[in-house]
Amino acid sequence: MKLESIVTPSLILNNEICLRNIENMSKKAEAAKVCFRPHFKTHQSRSVGKWFRNYDVNGITVSSVKMASYFADDGWDDITIAFPFNPREWNDIRKLTEKCKINILASGRESAKIISEKVDSRIGVFIETDNGYKRSGIDVFRLEEIVKTAQILKNNNNIHLSGILSHFGNSYSESSAGIQKIWDISVASLLKVKEALLNFGNIKISVGDTPCCSKINDFSGIDEIRPGNFIFYDIMQASKGICNINEIALTVACPVVDLHPERGEIIIYGGGIHLSKEFILNTNGERNYGVICSSSSSGWVDPVSESFVISLSQEHGIVKAPVKFINSLHVGDLVFILPIHSCITAQCFTYYTDINGNMHDHM
Amino acid sequence: MKLESIVTPSLILNNEICLRNIENMSKKAEAAKVCFRPHFKTHQSRSVGKWFRNYDVNGITVSSVKMASYFADDGWDDITIAFPFNPREWNDIRKLTEKCKINILASGRESAKIISEKVDSRIGVFIETDNGYKRSGIDVFRLEEIVKTAQILKNNNNIHLSGILSHFGNSYSESSAGIQKIWDISVASLLKVKEALLNFGNIKISVGDTPCCSKINDFSGIDEIRPGNFIFYDIMQASKGICNINEIALTVACPVVDLHPERGEIIIYGGGIHLSKEFILNTNGERNYGVICSSSSSGWVDPVSESFVISLSQEHGIVKAPVKFINSLHVGDLVFILPIHSCITAQCFTYYTDINGNMHDHM
Repeated sequence: MKLESIVTPSLILNNEICLRNIENMSKKAEAAKVCFRPHFKTHQSRSVGKWFRNYDVNGITVSSVKMASYFADDGWDDITIAFPFNPREWNDIRKLTEKCKINILASGRESAKIISEKVDSRIGVFIETDNGYKRSGIDVFRLEEIVKTAQILKNNNNIHLSGILSHFGNSYSESSAGIQKIWDISVASLLKVKEALLNFGNIKISVGDTPCCSKINDFSGIDEIRPGNFIFYDIMQASKGICNINEIALTVACPVVDLHPERGEIIIYGGGIHLSKEFILNTNGERNYGVICSSSSSGWVDPVSESFVISLSQEHGIVKAPVKFINSLHVGDLVFILPIHSCITAQCFTYYTDINGNMHDHM
Repeated sequence: MKLESIVTPSLILNNEICLRNIENMSKKAEAAKVCFRPHFKTHQSRSVGKWFRNYDVNGITVSSVKMASYFADDGWDDITIAFPFNPREWNDIRKLTEKCKINILASGRESAKIISEKVDSRIGVFIETDNGYKRSGIDVFRLEEIVKTAQILKNNNNIHLSGILSHFGNSYSESSAGIQKIWDISVASLLKVKEALLNFGNIKISVGDTPCCSKINDFSGIDEIRPGNFIFYDIMQASKGICNINEIALTVACPVVDLHPERGEIIIYGGGIHLSKEFILNTNGERNYGVICSSSSSGWVDPVSESFVISLSQEHGIVKAPVKFINSLHVGDLVFILPIHSCITAQCFTYYTDINGNMHDHM
């Protein structure tokens, strides 16, 4: 990797780790005989997306209509837009259905009515249920409401009722034991919904956040998993024991611009617009906006002990570090930051550089 | 304003409020006989930048070399890059000096040495001091260190020592009384630095964060102000009493995609990638990621009482709201969000739409 070519904060990808993460998840899905429909919102890269082709991935998940178009233009022809239907985007969705197989979400009865009124060509619709995360979707226990929603959709012959879809987002704040509990309860509830929808044909169950897909070994009952974050992982996942630190495939390379050994701090070119303002709380309650790794000629190496980003303004980052490490640095050196939440950090950039020096697009 | 043309989360600018904010700050600078060198990192728009020309603004401040190039290409020819010198960008800075007058920062002695070694054509350099914010710059009380830094810069005849520059960023966490105190102490310290640098010619003092520039009326002793945020203001500034809510010139228009009156919540298309993950804490300790306004045919109107964004994922926002307001909404309606930190929110978009329906670029 040519470190000298890095001039400003840059997104650096370790392709080997990435490919290993894809392979592990793909093998897991294969062994469990569930469909692997990875969420592409994490990488948002046509170039990285192609890597999944080697693992027999044909259907993908995205989080916006724009993202669906972006990947459809690259030949992906079976796309689930896993975001509540936005009536304002109907024209764009309509155009996409002419090009490829599209699934959208009905997140409530009102949403289903609008979809049912608008649809005039073949489209798949999942009913979104909320399994305790309390974001979008119909409460999974409101069976009658879910059945009524299915009836509304069935009124339109162009709509294929694909199944029920849920994001167990509450798993993100749990450790391993909590994740198993969320999985068990949520899958049991979804099986009851499936039973209630028996008359509506083949109802698939689609789930799959990264914490669950990484920690759960028995996928019985469900048909499809849609993890996204696992391709890069990040400090949030590592701090919960979902991945190991050496499974994190992404860093931000940041130039050192000022050194303050007297305060135990380094100032980097790398702010909220590069790392995002996402943080975790360290065990002592301090905010941690990213973990520091030192550089080697081949990219980043292990994290520097007791060193992390404590504060971010628009372009500056303040890094806490042991004096010994600070004294080993000069203005103009690079440090590498393991991001707190890789999806949001990747979103701050328009391309990746991999450790071989190749560029990869970001939408 | 054509609300029907808004399809996805969009940055909406009230130009009237914007122009009023520019006029107020410009008049204040004029009355105080200080140079007004606005920070363009907030709007990052050539189109919005042009509005300042009507207020005799000729010099501007930016926070990156890329931003300097962007505005230099639009005819701005006196630009201060108010970010610690990054040696990796020297070639790009060098190119800019051929085009226009550029000031850069030496934030420490090491940085000054590198600048002094590299510079081979006319450039202005400010010594950056830290006045208690504890970000970049030399501690303002280390007079000897500052003088040594000035000597290093003076060794190179191409360097014009422009003066001392400081960002009183600690003002952002203060109310009015605290701001006056920070101003008084900081200006007194900078005047001592100026005295210590008497032999180095005409040393300008350049300061000016938005809280200080908005609340302080007597700018005695300083030569230049560089506020940026004041053009849009935001909820962070309003919550500290720095501006009124009706001085906030920017919102994000977000489609409603799911309604949960039973939980007192609305789900919007508008997530961390649109609003940023910046938040303030409400008086009861709840996180507030943005304040909700309802829409009118001419844009947004007053905030909805007790309604704000309580949580953000990548594309979704969860809004807490009174049931009466929720029941007045339908899937597909728009709500307008007053941002917590306008600079960072604007950064999430590539253009603005103003309330007359015109587009303005964002870098």
